Amino acid sequence: MSLFVLVHGSWHDGSHWADVAEHLEKLGHEVHSPTVAGHGTGVSRDVNHDDCVASVTDYVESHNLTDFVLVGHSWGGSVIARVAERMPERVRRLVFLNAFVPENGSSVLDMAPPAYQELFPILAKQSGDNSVMLPFEVWRDAFVGDADLARAQETYGMLTPEPLNPTVEKLDLTVFYSLTGIPRSYVLCNEDSALPPGDPKHGYLANARRLGVFRLVTLEGSHEVMFTNPALLASKLEFAGRD
Amino acid sequence: MSLFVLVHGSWHDGSHWADVAEHLEKLGHEVHSPTVAGHGTGVSRDVNHDDCVASVTDYVESHNLTDFVLVGHSWGGSVIARVAERMPERVRRLVFLNAFVPENGSSVLDMAPPAYQELFPILAKQSGDNSVMLPFEVWRDAFVGDADLARAQETYGMLTPEPLNPTVEKLDLTVFYSLTGIPRSYVLCNEDSALPPGDPKHGYLANARRLGVFRLVTLEGSHEVMFTNPALLASKLEFAGRD
Amino acid sequence: MSLFVLVHGSWHDGSHWADVAEHLEKLGHEVHSPTVAGHGTGVSRDVNHDDCVASVTDYVESHNLTDFVLVGHSWGGSVIARVAERMPERVRRLVFLNAFVPENGSSVLDMAPPAYQELFPILAKQSGDNSVMLPFEVWRDAFVGDADLARAQETYGMLTPEPLNPTVEKLDLTVFYSLTGIPRSYVLCNEDSALPPGDPKHGYLANARRLGVFRLVTLEGSHEVMFTNPALLASKLEFAGRD
Repeated sequence: MSLFVLVHGSWHDGSHWADVAEHLEKLGHEVHSPTVAGHGTGVSRDVNHDDCVASVTDYVESHNLTDFVLVGHSWGGSVIARVAERMPERVRRLVFLNAFVPENGSSVLDMAPPAYQELFPILAKQSGDNSVMLPFEVWRDAFVGDADLARAQETYGMLTPEPLNPTVEKLDLTVFYSLTGIPRSYVLCNEDSALPPGDPKHGYLANARRLGVFRLVTLEGSHEVMFTNPALLASKLEFAGRD
Repeated sequence: MSLFVLVHGSWHDGSHWADVAEHLEKLGHEVHSPTVAGHGTGVSRDVNHDDCVASVTDYVESHNLTDFVLVGHSWGGSVIARVAERMPERVRRLVFLNAFVPENGSSVLDMAPPAYQELFPILAKQSGDNSVMLPFEVWRDAFVGDADLARAQETYGMLTPEPLNPTVEKLDLTVFYSLTGIPRSYVLCNEDSALPPGDPKHGYLANARRLGVFRLVTLEGSHEVMFTNPALLASKLEFAGRD
Repeated sequence: MSLFVLVHGSWHDGSHWADVAEHLEKLGHEVHSPTVAGHGTGVSRDVNHDDCVASVTDYVESHNLTDFVLVGHSWGGSVIARVAERMPERVRRLVFLNAFVPENGSSVLDMAPPAYQELFPILAKQSGDNSVMLPFEVWRDAFVGDADLARAQETYGMLTPEPLNPTVEKLDLTVFYSLTGIPRSYVLCNEDSALPPGDPKHGYLANARRLGVFRLVTLEGSHEVMFTNPALLASKLEFAGRD
């Protein structure tokens, strides 16, 4: 039995892990899935990356969680890397799920392909609160291409605007890249085209390779496999998270 | 229920989709698979890329086909891109199946690795009619490695020489690359080594990435999965083709 | 029915193929798995790459083996390439299993990422007999991430130190790269992160692409799939090895 802390990505909140959590619990694990600061419905988008990280470490401390598998999805990869910097003694293993592993000194958006780098600031300017909402066409094909249209629309309706700041702030990851003793896994969904698949510089594996020694776990599924195949994802997170 | 128009690749003709079409029809879809100009048995190889494209648009017009999923295999990717330029209002979605997506101003052969770029003109010169026949050894391992030897030989016997011109003509794809409103899917067969797998410049995903936003669908199979696993391919084309 | 000669990789010996061999034999094949010179328990590590190759060719000659499928795993890829140079008339097909295919004039370690290039000579110096033992943490996640911890520990206990010389010697593969008439397959395990997955220069497919025309066979599994899923590997080797 393991303890999992699941950290969502952009446009998501903690409730989106519900189906995965249910399957992990059926497998005997305990699951926590906090909503990161500035995310979810009815909250201010005026946050920075430190606030995001602090909201997770606060959750962990207030729940007295230790010895947990810390999972980060997509942008959440940048969050778990920094959570590990602040409480390395509590993290049993880091699991990156189609996640960013930013270069030291870079922002998450720096790691994304140029099309996103151009689009996000434009969308943020138009938003009124410096946030970004993903266009449906991008969501439907690049993020959740393995859903049918009804499920793609339903899940799009669950998303909330992403604050721009935590994606464009340069992150000092010096401590993360010098951490030893926390093993890492990278879970790769093979039908994910949210980042350009196979791109030597901007693809998922380019992020994974920055982990150095890591366990690779693959599955069929899109970037949003927590919505389209939560049972399979739960079983893969179990594999990715074991000692 | 969808309407599929399947455009074959080099050395193929429309009849090679028969098994895939049968499975798609069982799933409730209507399927058309025209033979492209200059391809198949008993026709002149003296065609250019415009002739190839026109043979498909003529077929579409004469059958009054609208609102269809347009699938292109291999070299056929260059054909469907240009068909979409000429009748964008008829195309519901483009599906590239281990297909070329040439850079604007490039030929299909420009996108292939140097070994093919050297081999094709030599073979064409020897042919007497400026066509190219694939050597069996290349077919057997790089194209249809997932077949047994008997099936590899049987399918090799179904191939016809490929006219060189439509593979070496530079293609103006300005309109294609400015088209908006036609969604795209890329279907990737994971055991295809007809193009160098994983090659950052010449691999299939390098072609797929030129599509910008697209849905990625993967399956186990070789370049010639229509011959080796037509049922699986049909189910994946259905996923790739849905809205 | 085929005849298989299986050549192990670094830290392995011939007995590690036992489960795979059993499955191949059940499928009707004959299997040989010699231990390469300088490998296994109780032998001197003072060997060079020529000794390694000779130990395989000696085995083949003393057992009068001809017309066999020659499989090389990992570092063993460099061995089978050179065995093929010395007895091309005996080799029916070469099968590289997550294997190195060194550039002509390069060593195996030259093909590995910089982290290994730095680590190996340091470990060899500390060993007393110029050999290298893989740290358990690297084995557990990068090599055998698909095993549970008990199996990872059990198999780690089966490993023996790898002589450094045969991994750092520059190999003249001029004959290998000019061989024609021996077809090649590359078997790729998708969850192998022993080499950096997807790396355009140091990944497995970068090695595979040096084969030119080859058959690609993929499976789910780590670098050590002979320990974690021998039945699946046997079935894939059968596919990879057929004519």
